[in-house]
Amino acid sequence: MKIVCSQSDLKNNLAFVSRAVPSRPEPLVLGNVLLEADETTKKLTMTAFDGRLGIRTSFQADIPEGGMITLPAKLFNDIVSRLPEMEITLTCDAEEDNSNLVATLSAASSKLQLNGMDAEEFPELPVVSQENTVDLPITSFLEGLKGCLFAASTELSKEVLTGIHVSSTEATTLEFAATDSHRLSVVQIFLDESEASEDKDRSSGETPDAGDVSSQIKLPEFAVTIPARALRELEKMLGDETGNQKTFRMRYDDTQIIFEGSSRTLTTLRLTGAYPPYQRLLPSTFVRYVVCDRKRLLSSLELVSVMAQKNNIAKFSLDSVQGELTLSVDAQDVGSAKQSISAEITGEDIDIAFNIKYLTDGLKAIRGTEVKMQLNEWNQPVIFTPLTGLKMTYLVMPVQIRS
Amino acid sequence: MKIVCSQSDLKNNLAFVSRAVPSRPEPLVLGNVLLEADETTKKLTMTAFDGRLGIRTSFQADIPEGGMITLPAKLFNDIVSRLPEMEITLTCDAEEDNSNLVATLSAASSKLQLNGMDAEEFPELPVVSQENTVDLPITSFLEGLKGCLFAASTELSKEVLTGIHVSSTEATTLEFAATDSHRLSVVQIFLDESEASEDKDRSSGETPDAGDVSSQIKLPEFAVTIPARALRELEKMLGDETGNQKTFRMRYDDTQIIFEGSSRTLTTLRLTGAYPPYQRLLPSTFVRYVVCDRKRLLSSLELVSVMAQKNNIAKFSLDSVQGELTLSVDAQDVGSAKQSISAEITGEDIDIAFNIKYLTDGLKAIRGTEVKMQLNEWNQPVIFTPLTGLKMTYLVMPVQIRS
Repeated sequence: MKIVCSQSDLKNNLAFVSRAVPSRPEPLVLGNVLLEADETTKKLTMTAFDGRLGIRTSFQADIPEGGMITLPAKLFNDIVSRLPEMEITLTCDAEEDNSNLVATLSAASSKLQLNGMDAEEFPELPVVSQENTVDLPITSFLEGLKGCLFAASTELSKEVLTGIHVSSTEATTLEFAATDSHRLSVVQIFLDESEASEDKDRSSGETPDAGDVSSQIKLPEFAVTIPARALRELEKMLGDETGNQKTFRMRYDDTQIIFEGSSRTLTTLRLTGAYPPYQRLLPSTFVRYVVCDRKRLLSSLELVSVMAQKNNIAKFSLDSVQGELTLSVDAQDVGSAKQSISAEITGEDIDIAFNIKYLTDGLKAIRGTEVKMQLNEWNQPVIFTPLTGLKMTYLVMPVQIRS
Repeated sequence: MKIVCSQSDLKNNLAFVSRAVPSRPEPLVLGNVLLEADETTKKLTMTAFDGRLGIRTSFQADIPEGGMITLPAKLFNDIVSRLPEMEITLTCDAEEDNSNLVATLSAASSKLQLNGMDAEEFPELPVVSQENTVDLPITSFLEGLKGCLFAASTELSKEVLTGIHVSSTEATTLEFAATDSHRLSVVQIFLDESEASEDKDRSSGETPDAGDVSSQIKLPEFAVTIPARALRELEKMLGDETGNQKTFRMRYDDTQIIFEGSSRTLTTLRLTGAYPPYQRLLPSTFVRYVVCDRKRLLSSLELVSVMAQKNNIAKFSLDSVQGELTLSVDAQDVGSAKQSISAEITGEDIDIAFNIKYLTDGLKAIRGTEVKMQLNEWNQPVIFTPLTGLKMTYLVMPVQIRS
C-alpha cells in the first residue's frame, strides 16, 4: 500500500472519523481506524465504529498502490496533527500472513512507524435492508437539531428519550421533538414557507437561501427516533457540507439509519421503542402571558444562579402593574440574589419557580430578540416560544417553591 | 460601610487578591477576602492570605462611609464577574455585636446579599522586622523569573528546591537559579550592560528601555530563596505594573519577604534552608558542541514525543559529517519515530538520551532563534544556552538509553 496526500486532508478526515472510536474498544480493533486505499478510484476511505455509531469518510489522494490496514486512532491522530502542512507518504508492506503489519509515515525529514492490525479483523458497518429513503434539506435539518438536541435525555436507561424524534406527516413539514421528561422541545419547519426564512433572526448566521431549496422538497410520510449522540456527529458532518450540497440522504429500516453526505457517511442504530405522544402534553389555553428580552432574561438567570445551591432553582415573580418580572434566589446561610427586568405581562400576578438549567438551555436555543412565556398556575407546564422566526415550542415543568 | 466603585475596578482587584485564597481554608475566615474601606483616603483595600502567601491590593473608590467586613471570596468573585460594567454600590449595616453581617451589592436592577464574617477574625498579614530593603528593576526581574520559574521543584518535601534563589554579589548583577535536582536553570542579568538590551531578542516583546533603568540601579549584596508559588503571583503583579513603575521594592528579614508595587503588596514566607552551591555543578570544559534552530528542535521533540511512552525519553544522535542531529523514540509494540534536523556539530559522534519534558521546558524559556548545546559524554551533564541575548544556562542530566 502506498498513499500520498496532504497533511490537512488526512488530519481533517481522521479527526472527523475518530469521533466514532470508543474510549474502551471491545474488541480491541475498534480502537483503530480502518484505511482502505483504492488504486483505481484514487480514494482513501477511513472508517471507525463503536458498535452503535459508525463514521466513514473518503477523499482523493495519490495512490500508486492500493491496500488496507487498521491503525490505532489516537496515536495516528496525534502524529498527523503534529506534522506541519506538507505532503505525507503513507506506506505499508504487508507480510504474507499479515502477522506483522507496520505502517510508515514519511514527511520531509520525519519518519514514523506505527504498528497496525489486520483490516480483515475490522467489522463491516451495518447496512440497511428494505430501504426507505428520504432526501432532507441540510439547513432546515440543522435548524431543527439546534432547537432540540439539548433537551434529549443523557441517561442511557431512558431509551427512546436519549433520541430525537424526527417526523413528517405532510410533504412540506418537518418536525423535531426531544424530551428528558422534565422539559420538551418541539420544532416545526415548514418547507413551503419561503417567507419563513425572511422572518428569521438574520444575525444567527444561517444560510439565507434555505427557503429556496426547502420549498422544492416534498417529503414522504415518516417518523424515526435517532440517537442524540449520532445527531451531534451528523450536525458536524452537515456543517461541513453546507456550501457544497443543499440536501443529504437518510436511509433506514427497522433497526438501522444511514445518513449520506457527499463524501461522508454516518450509520447508527435506530431507537425502536414508542416515542411518547408529546403533542398531548402541550397546553392549548393559557391565563398568563409574559414577553421580555431574551438575552436580558438569560443574563439575569446567570447572575441569580450564583446564589442557587445544589437544587439550582430560581423564583419568577410577575408584577403586571409595574410591568416587571423579578427573578430571585434565596440561599439560607449564604445570601440572596434578586434581579428585575421589564416585561409585558398579561394576567394575574403569580410566583412560579424553575430549574435554572432547563431555562437557560432553552433560552439559548430559542434565539431571536424577544421570548414569550405562556403559563397557567404555579404547578402547571409553562411554554416558552420565540416571538418571531423559528416555530419552536419549549415546555418546562415548574418546581415547587420551598416555603 | 458604603462603597461606590466601578465593576471593572472591583473585578480586577478581587480576581488578583483571590489568588491567595486557599482552596481548603483553615480557619474558615481565610476563605474570605478582607475589605477595608477608608472614608478619609477614599481607598478600598482588599486582603487575602493562605497562611504562607498574602496579597493586598487597594484602589480609589467613592466611600461615603468607611468600614470593614470579610466576604466569601469565590461567591463574591462569581457575583462581581457576572455583573455588567457599571457602577456598583456595596453597603453593610453592621449590628452592634457583629453577629449577623450582611453585605448588599446593588447595581441597576440587581440586588445581591452576601453573608460575611467579622473583620476582626481575619489574621494580620506578617510584617518584616530588622528591615533589609532592595529596589529591583521590574523588567529585568521578570526576565530572570521567565528563565527560571519552570525549573523549580513542585514537590513540597524538597523545601528550598521549591523556591528560586535570587542573589546579587556585585552591585550591577542579579542572578536567578532554580533546580529540581534533575535540571538547573541559571540566569544572570547585568544591569550595567545597556548594550545587553540591544542583543536581546526584540521579538520577545520586552520593554526596550530596560537597560536604561537598570543601569542606574546599584544593588546591595543579598541572597534569598523565594517560594516559586509566590513568584508566580509576583510575575502577574509586576506584569500589571510595567508602564507605571520601573522598579519595585523587596523587604525581608530571616523568615518573611514582602514585595511592594505601587498599589499592591505580596507577602510570603522565606525559604530558609541552605541553597545548593549550584555553580559547582556547571561543567567548565566540553568536548562536543551542537548549534541548531531552537523552534525546529522544539517541534521535532514534540513530534517524536507522540511515540514516547511513560518514561518520555528521546535519543539524540549527532552526525558531524552530515551536519545532522537525529531525534528518535522507539516504543516496543507501538512503533517508532525519527526526525532529523540540520545542525552545526563539533566533536565526535555520540548517542545521548534525555527526558523530553525537561528539554521542552528549557527550550521554551531560552527564547532566541538558535540554541547551543554543550556536552561531554552520554552520562555527563549537558548545557543548553541561547546563542545570543539573555545569559541563561540550562543544565540537564542525560538518562541511560535502554539497550
